Amino acid sequence: MKHRSPDEYLILKRIIGRAADSTQNLVGHGIRVGMGDDAALFQPKAGHQTILTCDWFLEGTHFLRDKHPPDAVGWKCLARAVSDVAAMGGVPRCFLLSLALPVSHTGRWLDEFLSGLRRAARKFDCALAGGDTTRRREILINVTVVGEVRTARAVLRSGARAGDLLYVSGRLGEAELGLQILRHSKGLGNRTNPLTRKHLYPEPRVALGRWLADARLASSMMDLSDGLSSDLPRLCAASGVGAQVQMSKIPRVRIPKHALVGGIDATRLALHGGDDYELLFAVPPHRLQVVPMSFQGVPLTSIGSITKKREIVLLEDGGRQQQLAAGGWDPFRVTR
Amino acid sequence: MKHRSPDEYLILKRIIGRAADSTQNLVGHGIRVGMGDDAALFQPKAGHQTILTCDWFLEGTHFLRDKHPPDAVGWKCLARAVSDVAAMGGVPRCFLLSLALPVSHTGRWLDEFLSGLRRAARKFDCALAGGDTTRRREILINVTVVGEVRTARAVLRSGARAGDLLYVSGRLGEAELGLQILRHSKGLGNRTNPLTRKHLYPEPRVALGRWLADARLASSMMDLSDGLSSDLPRLCAASGVGAQVQMSKIPRVRIPKHALVGGIDATRLALHGGDDYELLFAVPPHRLQVVPMSFQGVPLTSIGSITKKREIVLLEDGGRQQQLAAGGWDPFRVTR
Repeated sequence: MKHRSPDEYLILKRIIGRAADSTQNLVGHGIRVGMGDDAALFQPKAGHQTILTCDWFLEGTHFLRDKHPPDAVGWKCLARAVSDVAAMGGVPRCFLLSLALPVSHTGRWLDEFLSGLRRAARKFDCALAGGDTTRRREILINVTVVGEVRTARAVLRSGARAGDLLYVSGRLGEAELGLQILRHSKGLGNRTNPLTRKHLYPEPRVALGRWLADARLASSMMDLSDGLSSDLPRLCAASGVGAQVQMSKIPRVRIPKHALVGGIDATRLALHGGDDYELLFAVPPHRLQVVPMSFQGVPLTSIGSITKKREIVLLEDGGRQQQLAAGGWDPFRVTR
Repeated sequence: MKHRSPDEYLILKRIIGRAADSTQNLVGHGIRVGMGDDAALFQPKAGHQTILTCDWFLEGTHFLRDKHPPDAVGWKCLARAVSDVAAMGGVPRCFLLSLALPVSHTGRWLDEFLSGLRRAARKFDCALAGGDTTRRREILINVTVVGEVRTARAVLRSGARAGDLLYVSGRLGEAELGLQILRHSKGLGNRTNPLTRKHLYPEPRVALGRWLADARLASSMMDLSDGLSSDLPRLCAASGVGAQVQMSKIPRVRIPKHALVGGIDATRLALHGGDDYELLFAVPPHRLQVVPMSFQGVPLTSIGSITKKREIVLLEDGGRQQQLAAGGWDPFRVTR
């Protein structure tokens, strides 16, 4: 990680002190040189491929300064990128943090941000290896995660074949419900509210993704970051297939009576809500017997099947069909 | 590289079409899966360590929309990060591009940006492997470069020892002169002006860095991105040493008579000017005979020596001494 000034050096020292593991641990993660040099040195494991992914996490676009607690910003910026590694069936190893901050946020805000980041780094076993810092009016974050997967075991988006069954982990729409509650409440989000936790502190499905890859159960996989209606078409496009989804089977958020926010509909949340970071994966028919009902407490639900015809059809109870229209996250669509 | 919408998909297609190499070439760079999946898959070379580095390149902070031609923005955002790999003695292999753009810049500006990026990617033999795009009022760029170096051959900042001679490549201050000319001229910078080219299209010293590492000539090395007065103290701090620099020996920019910008002083430019991306390195006394006067046309100049005492002293002709005060780039210093 580079620093560029005495002041920036102090920020870097804070980052190293509060977010980085000890040198001992860095070596355990394959990192030979971390902070304070031009770049980080990483020792890849023999017989493995390296997974590379990066994610924006920008104030105003991905989080709100007055709604998202700083430690949730720290947790989530790493969790999002780790989820991409999980979606390949890999394991995270280390990450680079690019951080642009106003001077006013280099004290307490930064400390709390780093505290959330460190909790996530420990939870996902992913060590801070380097990064870049600069000053900026707005809070800008970019995280690069480096992961590993045994050679030729990565699960791509492109492997789904007609006849495969389509699965999702967890319950969809929970994070979107959390976001809506956050938007309608005053001040910073509440860390302990179980309804907002899934939005603030998502848990990428690393163990599940790795198990599906190791057991060769999934022919195709991705993480649900922008909502099923946006992400399923991408998996199908990458595989050159279509899908039929049974609406009633989609495991969806349970909306408690006291969480009354106007016009909330669990089906809409489950179809179009983003930020769940659950896994969407296809399983070939001859492997179906091996898929359990749940994995480490996370339900695995078959919601439909892969079809040869390149369209995505929603089947409703009573036989009504409709084509799926994307309703998820789209930064370049000017009106949503 | 992820895309998140039909619109974003078009931007991604443009990026793939204009900046990415063919699949054949990606495989040549060790990349097994590039665009369109959750993450990129990279096959590390046996017997090598992976070098990881990332760099911000932000409108208003690192470049100006109305001064920097889009293709220079594309070239420079990659060149800066590649320079960190060169400074370790490594070779770049692939990179991730995180790009946030206003909708108004997804047409011609993006095309020209990608054209400069592609030229740089070819020049540095570094393939686009993935990234993330989003919409934003300002142009935000973050580049992660992945490089490789033979195991245990990386040259760190921390290896300088008292008695080593201190070298720089090239001439210092050329990029800063280019920036000042750019600031004083109207409209977009001129691609062909040799005085601004060093600022707009820097060439990281990849071949030199690799040669110094392979030949085990450098005990310590870094790239000069923020200016000698800012960067030399970092090399010394990392090595726990000091340095004596002979002012008259610093190879400095030649200021042509027609480039009259008020108050320009070649010595100040050479000491404090940023963005040169030359290499600063230390050579142990028993290896001095091996260092040539130039490498592939780039002059290599000894400017002083490493000392035990942890201070940085500038020796002027006539014997006057002064302590070096940092005057380079410092994003968190509010007044410069």
